[in-house]
Amino acid sequence: MNFKISSPTLLLDKQKVLNNIQKMLLKVEKNGLKFRPHFKTHQSVQIGRWFDRTQLDGITVSSLKMAEFFSKDGWQSITVAFPMNILEIDRVNNLASSIDLRTLIVDVNTVNKLDAKLTTVVGVYIEIDPGYGRSGIHFDDKTSIESLKEAIQSSKKLELHGFYCHAGHSYQSRSIEEIRALAKPIIEQLSNLKVAFDLPVCFGDTPSCSVLEDFGEIEELSPGNFVFYDWIQTHIGSCTPDQIAVAMACPVVAKYESRNELLIHGGAVHFSKDFDLHQGSSHYFGQVAENNGGIWGDPMKDCYLKSISQEHGIIKCTDEFFQQTKISDSVIILPIHSCLTADLMGQYFTTDGVTIDHLSEKMIK
Amino acid sequence: MNFKISSPTLLLDKQKVLNNIQKMLLKVEKNGLKFRPHFKTHQSVQIGRWFDRTQLDGITVSSLKMAEFFSKDGWQSITVAFPMNILEIDRVNNLASSIDLRTLIVDVNTVNKLDAKLTTVVGVYIEIDPGYGRSGIHFDDKTSIESLKEAIQSSKKLELHGFYCHAGHSYQSRSIEEIRALAKPIIEQLSNLKVAFDLPVCFGDTPSCSVLEDFGEIEELSPGNFVFYDWIQTHIGSCTPDQIAVAMACPVVAKYESRNELLIHGGAVHFSKDFDLHQGSSHYFGQVAENNGGIWGDPMKDCYLKSISQEHGIIKCTDEFFQQTKISDSVIILPIHSCLTADLMGQYFTTDGVTIDHLSEKMIK
Repeated sequence: MNFKISSPTLLLDKQKVLNNIQKMLLKVEKNGLKFRPHFKTHQSVQIGRWFDRTQLDGITVSSLKMAEFFSKDGWQSITVAFPMNILEIDRVNNLASSIDLRTLIVDVNTVNKLDAKLTTVVGVYIEIDPGYGRSGIHFDDKTSIESLKEAIQSSKKLELHGFYCHAGHSYQSRSIEEIRALAKPIIEQLSNLKVAFDLPVCFGDTPSCSVLEDFGEIEELSPGNFVFYDWIQTHIGSCTPDQIAVAMACPVVAKYESRNELLIHGGAVHFSKDFDLHQGSSHYFGQVAENNGGIWGDPMKDCYLKSISQEHGIIKCTDEFFQQTKISDSVIILPIHSCLTADLMGQYFTTDGVTIDHLSEKMIK
Repeated sequence: MNFKISSPTLLLDKQKVLNNIQKMLLKVEKNGLKFRPHFKTHQSVQIGRWFDRTQLDGITVSSLKMAEFFSKDGWQSITVAFPMNILEIDRVNNLASSIDLRTLIVDVNTVNKLDAKLTTVVGVYIEIDPGYGRSGIHFDDKTSIESLKEAIQSSKKLELHGFYCHAGHSYQSRSIEEIRALAKPIIEQLSNLKVAFDLPVCFGDTPSCSVLEDFGEIEELSPGNFVFYDWIQTHIGSCTPDQIAVAMACPVVAKYESRNELLIHGGAVHFSKDFDLHQGSSHYFGQVAENNGGIWGDPMKDCYLKSISQEHGIIKCTDEFFQQTKISDSVIILPIHSCLTADLMGQYFTTDGVTIDHLSEKMIK
């Protein structure tokens, strides 16, 4: 590591990011799919440029703000993978006048409102709920799908690109087999929809995209988290620990020998409060990894971020790790959920010492 | 409300903030205490100015960054309520050259390092752990306390201000009686320490400060969350719902009648993933309140933020609330943990339409 940290710092291993991108690209190519990766995970202009634009059909984001951000770096086809918020119509009109902007639609009323208020053509996908229960028309509800398809096709302002589906319940899986068992019937249902409605399907959770080899009739993929992965993804079954491309480095400020605990500067405003469960019971907030001069190695058994408050973190660890770690050392911690940690940290430092941007960069006051 | 929101917005009721401050001040005055309120909750220059500086002994923050931030607005006595991080020594020296900077000390080694590296006098408190198990010397460990006191008093660079104690385990309480039962023996122990070591005590969790009337031998208070309170504090027993001074306003983007659920724009990057538990079991992330034209009223029974992902939120609600709420309406949600929500949102809008700053304001890209 070419720099010494003095406060919580989000490290990024560029080579791991490139490897993760390359692996997903090979799968996309092998299956003859279109690729619209989700940029909500990294939210970074510089990391966006690590993709070869000629290999992408476009990109995906989760808010209009992110679409505006990436459009400024020349991205010309952007899906906002969120049901259209008609209150943002002025910004939608503005952005859609200069790029191929796409968004999600879940009801006929919004189609009618858009028809009245759009000043330019906007692309849309019908969002399908594959049983996740978050958003979209349930894929069994053929009547609603048909009505919405007809309404969109009757609109002069909307261009229908097909179905969009996020199977977020894949995050409940705890093995490759569980991911496959969940994803297989979803892929079949989506393939049936494709045939029944003659519309292409865009599909995209990281667990399914990471472990499936056969995507049936699906035409586009839009996973996001795979660029970094994180500790929870290793438990879901999406990746191995050595694929995790970001890690927090936090200074040790106190040692408490009676309880084998280290106090670090690094809390909820750095990691987020997303958690994993030990054996299904107690919460924890990150996994300690070997620190090889700022490059992280294997996860360290029984060494983890036990609790966090706003700025404080408590590392519970083995006798050995406790004894070898001194005050002012850095502990390297694999985040539970890299998207949220990156959003909070607002920038990255690569393991070779380069600062990388993030949309959520804080103002310097 | 003098403005219409189109995306997730953190609302602030200035009068409630002023009332909360006034109530705590009256308690401080009645008990003849010094007051060093914790500014980590609001992290705002403008809200800091709502305090009358003549009534404060100083302020408290949780990071050196916050101390630097508030020193620029003329705050002259600031405690960084975190064990000294020697890696930040250059910034400490710089800041301590212009203000009365105070920090926490938990071990003799750090005293020795500070003695060698400080270029100016810095104030310190010995941090005492009252059984919370996060940081500090346990209050039964008189030997370590005595050694540290002696080391600090032998130092030419450190000025000892007394003991600092945060009883964060008060957040596990679920009634006023439980808070009192936890706090009473702690106050007694701290009073004993005061007498035994002839050192004043600064004490400060919001639950204890909100419900106790007698602070024994304690000399200073430093609560933070009380300026805003939040939904979890109503369950802890610290406040009533009408004292909560901040609330999120989020647009409804879709309705799912089969499950009485509303999809809002408002997720983990807005609320944080801090949660409360329904009857000790399922997690939820916020409580819906009546929306009286942008001013929040009573909490609405059985209407809550059931789940959140990065940008999505799902409101589970009653038939009645479901029927009366339309797409593009705003739902007002009391946050579980106001400190983290404010940190994520990076700014406030008052209910009379004024924008208020926050240290974590994002850059406009």
